[in-house]
Amino acid sequence: MCKFNVALLQISVYDNKEKNINNAVKMIEQVSKEGADIVVLPEMFCCPYDNSYFKAFGEEEGGIAYKAISKAAKEFGIYVVAGTIPELDGDKIYNTSYVFNKKGEQIAKHRKMHLFDIDIEGGQYFKESDTFTPGSDVTVFETEFCKIGLAVCYDVRFPELSRLMVNEGAEVIIIPGAFNMTTGPAHWELHFRARALDNQVYTIGVAPARDYEASYYSYGNSIIASPWGNVLNRMDENQGYIIQEIDVDYVEKIRNELPLLKHRRKDIYSLNKLK
Amino acid sequence: MCKFNVALLQISVYDNKEKNINNAVKMIEQVSKEGADIVVLPEMFCCPYDNSYFKAFGEEEGGIAYKAISKAAKEFGIYVVAGTIPELDGDKIYNTSYVFNKKGEQIAKHRKMHLFDIDIEGGQYFKESDTFTPGSDVTVFETEFCKIGLAVCYDVRFPELSRLMVNEGAEVIIIPGAFNMTTGPAHWELHFRARALDNQVYTIGVAPARDYEASYYSYGNSIIASPWGNVLNRMDENQGYIIQEIDVDYVEKIRNELPLLKHRRKDIYSLNKLK
Repeated sequence: MCKFNVALLQISVYDNKEKNINNAVKMIEQVSKEGADIVVLPEMFCCPYDNSYFKAFGEEEGGIAYKAISKAAKEFGIYVVAGTIPELDGDKIYNTSYVFNKKGEQIAKHRKMHLFDIDIEGGQYFKESDTFTPGSDVTVFETEFCKIGLAVCYDVRFPELSRLMVNEGAEVIIIPGAFNMTTGPAHWELHFRARALDNQVYTIGVAPARDYEASYYSYGNSIIASPWGNVLNRMDENQGYIIQEIDVDYVEKIRNELPLLKHRRKDIYSLNKLK
Repeated sequence: MCKFNVALLQISVYDNKEKNINNAVKMIEQVSKEGADIVVLPEMFCCPYDNSYFKAFGEEEGGIAYKAISKAAKEFGIYVVAGTIPELDGDKIYNTSYVFNKKGEQIAKHRKMHLFDIDIEGGQYFKESDTFTPGSDVTVFETEFCKIGLAVCYDVRFPELSRLMVNEGAEVIIIPGAFNMTTGPAHWELHFRARALDNQVYTIGVAPARDYEASYYSYGNSIIASPWGNVLNRMDENQGYIIQEIDVDYVEKIRNELPLLKHRRKDIYSLNKLK
């Protein structure tokens, strides 16, 4: 039997990096006391989601946000999926998620692979590619509970990426994200449920709380979907957290009852990593 | 501007092949009078969905159900996606969907590629592979409206197949199906919405009406989802039909506003047909 508790921290993000980091650390401490084994922060947990902030609030790998979260992971003995931080690397900026184990060691890093460029008539406009460089690695990390796939926000829209993570053994997929008020109500739950069902994995999406004073309104609604495709737990738009037990054995049960992954026609089609 | 009307025939299926065929022909006539350009029949529209019937109600390509539907397509001047018929070919049986144009000519044929074997604790048990042989072709056909992908029921569960149809130009995907009372409420709508959203296509699922005297209860709920991932129209479990206008230009609008297909990382992953 393999179960663990995952905490979703839907935190508010302010125009103050230090305040954002302290807020995250405080909530990591809180959920660790309540028995969480893994805690997940939202995309851009320490930086307003706005192209004009990413460079100013960014840092190289090992910067102040990185160090503070790594320290919290060690101090409170908890895995931390550190949402995302704008990562400065030479003249490039990546939208990067770091993962720290209970000793505070970095065990994974995912640079958002698909950049979000949208222009909806009468709705949302945003061009991440004006600022960010995309990553190019499929990311799966090991824990004592199971293998976990890691992606960032817009990455959830591409079934190929989730499939590749599952091919590498992921039974849970964690995706910090920040959908908006156009795409959130329309697509957020649908994508997390669909990736969960198609791949018979748990999917976990963690978003910043909504802030109507920001230039970009986060949809919030942090979510956990089950390998059967239903919503296990879901938040509203406000700051807060939930702690949800994940039963990893249920993944195997579903995969035995309805063997979708086995039934793929690998003699007809093939999905491959090119790098 | 390119629009057409599609009719979904959610017909009841009886233990009488001739009655089923006549029923289908009558409804094809009816929707053609109401302006439908394409009509879609459900999976196994002329045969109870039960392994013990498939051989007895089956026929070779060009059999009596085939001929009757082809004739109706020509007589009423309407495209017909002829749900599925058990196709006998030597000692093999396929779950096959034929498509006829307005002249009654066969323009496509899809043999269900993924066979449905399920064994849910306390729920549904069914093993198609006891009886059927799977097909091995990705099927896309041309009409004057747009290219249309064709698959059958369980095929909808495999994101690879829809993606391959879209790679070949499909802007609409039609899938006759017969989900049951375990998988229907849990997954039917989710799959049709997800395939539509991921691929920015219309998806159309057509099921037999529910019959509590049959050994297999069809979920019904024939459905059309839009390229934005919402449900355009959906039936209940009873016999009937709906006619829905499809605006093909909306596919291009959505693909321009949110360019998911363009944003795929073809430098990182590749989905290929092997045959």
